Amino acid sequence: MLQQLSGIIPPLTTPFTADGEVYEEGLGRLVEFQVEKGVHGLFICGTYGSGPLMSAEQRKRVHEIVQAQARGRVTIVAHVGAASTEQSVELAQHAASVGIPYVSSISPFYYHHDERTLIAYFRALVQAVDVPVYVYNNPKASGITVTPALLPKLADVGVRGIKDSGFSYIDLTHLMLAMEDRPDFHFIVGTEGIALPAWMTGARGCVSGLANAFPEIMVKLWDLFQAKKYEEAAQLQLKVNKARQFLHIPSSTKAACYTALHARGIDVGYPKAPVLPVEEQKGAEMVAAFQQIGLL
Amino acid sequence: MLQQLSGIIPPLTTPFTADGEVYEEGLGRLVEFQVEKGVHGLFICGTYGSGPLMSAEQRKRVHEIVQAQARGRVTIVAHVGAASTEQSVELAQHAASVGIPYVSSISPFYYHHDERTLIAYFRALVQAVDVPVYVYNNPKASGITVTPALLPKLADVGVRGIKDSGFSYIDLTHLMLAMEDRPDFHFIVGTEGIALPAWMTGARGCVSGLANAFPEIMVKLWDLFQAKKYEEAAQLQLKVNKARQFLHIPSSTKAACYTALHARGIDVGYPKAPVLPVEEQKGAEMVAAFQQIGLL
Amino acid sequence: MLQQLSGIIPPLTTPFTADGEVYEEGLGRLVEFQVEKGVHGLFICGTYGSGPLMSAEQRKRVHEIVQAQARGRVTIVAHVGAASTEQSVELAQHAASVGIPYVSSISPFYYHHDERTLIAYFRALVQAVDVPVYVYNNPKASGITVTPALLPKLADVGVRGIKDSGFSYIDLTHLMLAMEDRPDFHFIVGTEGIALPAWMTGARGCVSGLANAFPEIMVKLWDLFQAKKYEEAAQLQLKVNKARQFLHIPSSTKAACYTALHARGIDVGYPKAPVLPVEEQKGAEMVAAFQQIGLL
Amino acid sequence: MLQQLSGIIPPLTTPFTADGEVYEEGLGRLVEFQVEKGVHGLFICGTYGSGPLMSAEQRKRVHEIVQAQARGRVTIVAHVGAASTEQSVELAQHAASVGIPYVSSISPFYYHHDERTLIAYFRALVQAVDVPVYVYNNPKASGITVTPALLPKLADVGVRGIKDSGFSYIDLTHLMLAMEDRPDFHFIVGTEGIALPAWMTGARGCVSGLANAFPEIMVKLWDLFQAKKYEEAAQLQLKVNKARQFLHIPSSTKAACYTALHARGIDVGYPKAPVLPVEEQKGAEMVAAFQQIGLL
Repeated sequence: MLQQLSGIIPPLTTPFTADGEVYEEGLGRLVEFQVEKGVHGLFICGTYGSGPLMSAEQRKRVHEIVQAQARGRVTIVAHVGAASTEQSVELAQHAASVGIPYVSSISPFYYHHDERTLIAYFRALVQAVDVPVYVYNNPKASGITVTPALLPKLADVGVRGIKDSGFSYIDLTHLMLAMEDRPDFHFIVGTEGIALPAWMTGARGCVSGLANAFPEIMVKLWDLFQAKKYEEAAQLQLKVNKARQFLHIPSSTKAACYTALHARGIDVGYPKAPVLPVEEQKGAEMVAAFQQIGLL
Repeated sequence: MLQQLSGIIPPLTTPFTADGEVYEEGLGRLVEFQVEKGVHGLFICGTYGSGPLMSAEQRKRVHEIVQAQARGRVTIVAHVGAASTEQSVELAQHAASVGIPYVSSISPFYYHHDERTLIAYFRALVQAVDVPVYVYNNPKASGITVTPALLPKLADVGVRGIKDSGFSYIDLTHLMLAMEDRPDFHFIVGTEGIALPAWMTGARGCVSGLANAFPEIMVKLWDLFQAKKYEEAAQLQLKVNKARQFLHIPSSTKAACYTALHARGIDVGYPKAPVLPVEEQKGAEMVAAFQQIGLL
Repeated sequence: MLQQLSGIIPPLTTPFTADGEVYEEGLGRLVEFQVEKGVHGLFICGTYGSGPLMSAEQRKRVHEIVQAQARGRVTIVAHVGAASTEQSVELAQHAASVGIPYVSSISPFYYHHDERTLIAYFRALVQAVDVPVYVYNNPKASGITVTPALLPKLADVGVRGIKDSGFSYIDLTHLMLAMEDRPDFHFIVGTEGIALPAWMTGARGCVSGLANAFPEIMVKLWDLFQAKKYEEAAQLQLKVNKARQFLHIPSSTKAACYTALHARGIDVGYPKAPVLPVEEQKGAEMVAAFQQIGLL
Repeated sequence: MLQQLSGIIPPLTTPFTADGEVYEEGLGRLVEFQVEKGVHGLFICGTYGSGPLMSAEQRKRVHEIVQAQARGRVTIVAHVGAASTEQSVELAQHAASVGIPYVSSISPFYYHHDERTLIAYFRALVQAVDVPVYVYNNPKASGITVTPALLPKLADVGVRGIKDSGFSYIDLTHLMLAMEDRPDFHFIVGTEGIALPAWMTGARGCVSGLANAFPEIMVKLWDLFQAKKYEEAAQLQLKVNKARQFLHIPSSTKAACYTALHARGIDVGYPKAPVLPVEEQKGAEMVAAFQQIGLL
């Protein structure tokens, strides 16, 4: 039976060796850390997970390791987005073949495709696999916005949900309103920065970059929401938004996660080139900021 | 004693005659409509109110009429923003002289001023009047963003609050976090699109364009929030966001308010040139949409 | 007979007193400086000229002083753009009444008007005066782009030319191509940064901010172009583009002109609030840069 | 001896079969067409060439086919840009190994890397191969702008030139000015839209998308420039800019090249998914437009 995709779903950082290979031991350890801290799912090979930096072989290896390590304790979403349909389909089929229950894809990147192209892309992806496909809306990364006009058309070709990293509560509600007659279409908010507002209006989970290193605060936010403790949750949301600003002290939030995880005692190796490890001073400044609010 | 600035504060549409003069009778009628519907304040001569289209004399006339008509039943904020310091100061002094208890100003528009200039501008405004001055953050209109770095500096020169029309919940929380050690600094959210999330994290009112024609739905949202009925409020927030989309059916939300108010039976005359009345077909489409959700 | 609008046309800096009044003596002196240096026209009360910062009375005073001082030795364009049609028309009629042979207007600013509104605005302006009206395209200042689709429609309502400050040679050629069957429609390029390319494809003058303080280099560029010395002109264009970068050392190029003019020995008083005089260090850095390339 | 990189250098369209494999016969034919029409070089696997859509194996196959077909009659630049350093290096080494004399890379895409990361990326690329490396500036495609501050630092780590697709003559001159003390650093303009202005100020070639289907008009523009017929060249530049607008009639200029090449009688197969063939109506409209100006 399909595990529900909901709750806190970190976009898992992928540990690499110094020469850019998947650091398998570190990856297993990180999955274990996340499971122990109570997250509900893992979004792998996404933007935080350096999916677009990896070869197809490396991405497949991550599918296998994470799925094996998680052992069904949390649900998994494999991000299979790529520049070409061919590669996305290959990755989606692999993910499904190893038992991963969900796949998601950003709009094919590099080029600024039109609506017709996006529909054809997602149709091909949906037809290639039996698992549910979620569109991943991230205009900053792909240069393409999934609009309220487009989303129903993607649902028409079989897309089952959206992970929205548009960073705008208003835009998210517009997407929800465009789907209000399809209550089985799922919304996952793709940033912790608007998590509580998104959940209160119908999103049922959060892919939270902050949760990569600090799953506890996000799990707590989710628990408060589930317990209907809205006022306390709103106060914690403010703290979450403070914390997530600290990830921006280095120039790359993706790289920042490695530093923060090391500070938590998890050896996640290195980011993959061209991404560089965080500069020492920026890293120290970020760590101090997290310490000051009690997260480290 | 200073009336608290909180609750629903429509950015009052200014009725004009066909040749662009203030339509005084219509303005009085509109104030009466708003007061009867239970709004808590009026933000006059703002972006919706066509402040930047009016001469100084016309803006002063609006100050006088609204203040006289309101008779203290609701609080008033006069938006005094202009391109030049000279004009803003003149308008602020006039507003204060007729008893208006708050003034607000967008960053001086047309030019993209730097931080040093903005600080000097707001310092001059604060020093010119005895009433509280709120900065009005509207990057779309002014091309200038009030950043978390700038806001404390504006508070240092005496600015007492902000009406934030940045349309981003995340950015608003960043502004709040930048002021977290100054709890007497006031936040008013400048769009109904994020009203509930903003209130839950500390904003204490909303300047809502939608409330120009539909104050009831916004007053109800505020009442639900005040009554801590968060789930019901979140559902109503979605409906609010649906309704506000309809104001975008015509190309100008500002012009749309005249059409919507006429549809509600309030004669508010005309928008002021260069703004044109809404095209008939677009207006009919908008009215039909509001009817369909029961607002008309 | 109408003087031809062509050649080098500085967007004249307006000298102010310390308290923001037009510094009439300084203005007269500056006109004299420009005429002596051989410019062909003056574009007054524009973006560089602080038109949007001045009251209608102040702008009218500038019309009168410049027109009187120029005594027909150079042609004059009065920029009459404002937020409201009413004010633009009033200014245009005044300019024409004192003998100024051209008026120009940016798209009415503050609001992001649609095409229908822009056409109505320019129609009203054209109908209000007997002198030729030029549209001033400045997307950065007004938030509105005059597109190749719009320009023929503006010509249809009587607009006679365009001063294009879009800062893009490609976009300028698209505007030219949209008007290729109307050879009497005039193009003036609104930045010296693409002057030579623009002239070579049909623009017949340049409103050059750099020429405010350094008219000589722009007059020389024009002379080389007129003399068909294209290779020498192209080399000088590079130097012009170097020089114009120096105006960006301070945060406001408009304020920078006051400093540069003072460095040339012309007392132009002060910029008008909220614009501040250039910070001393930035001003010194800019002056040193101009000295290094021999302009000071 | 190194062939000079200059003149007209189309960013070669890559012909694909219906199922997305390199259409080798079509590719050979297209190279032949270009050589016959007199172009001076070929920029392969770039944005127009669908490099980012191809697997490493497919890109290598294109290197081999083009290099073999060209037989030294024109020079070749292999675009090796990718999201990861690993893949770019692998492609660059392959290109060099088959005798391609130049490689170029866009800033690594998908992520918005900082300066430090870009420098490290280009250093790695330069160190990996013996052939000259050019940076390819394309802010629209990569989200990253090569600034005048960055370019000298890239030169410091061995980058030898730039293909600038910033689409701005002013920005290009700023890049040139930043390198004015390094006359051996090469500038190639990456759009035909500013070709003549760029050449006149020092760029020595043009990677022209229009030249994919219409090499003749670009070769003629280059010849006029070489012959110092600047006025005739400027008139032709206007026609070039008219023609390039027609490539924008379909939503993808890249897809448009297939249609235009088919209209010229060259069978280039299909674009590669997710890119779709141009919609019939848009294609017909584009073909008619080219016919009207005599290019078809």
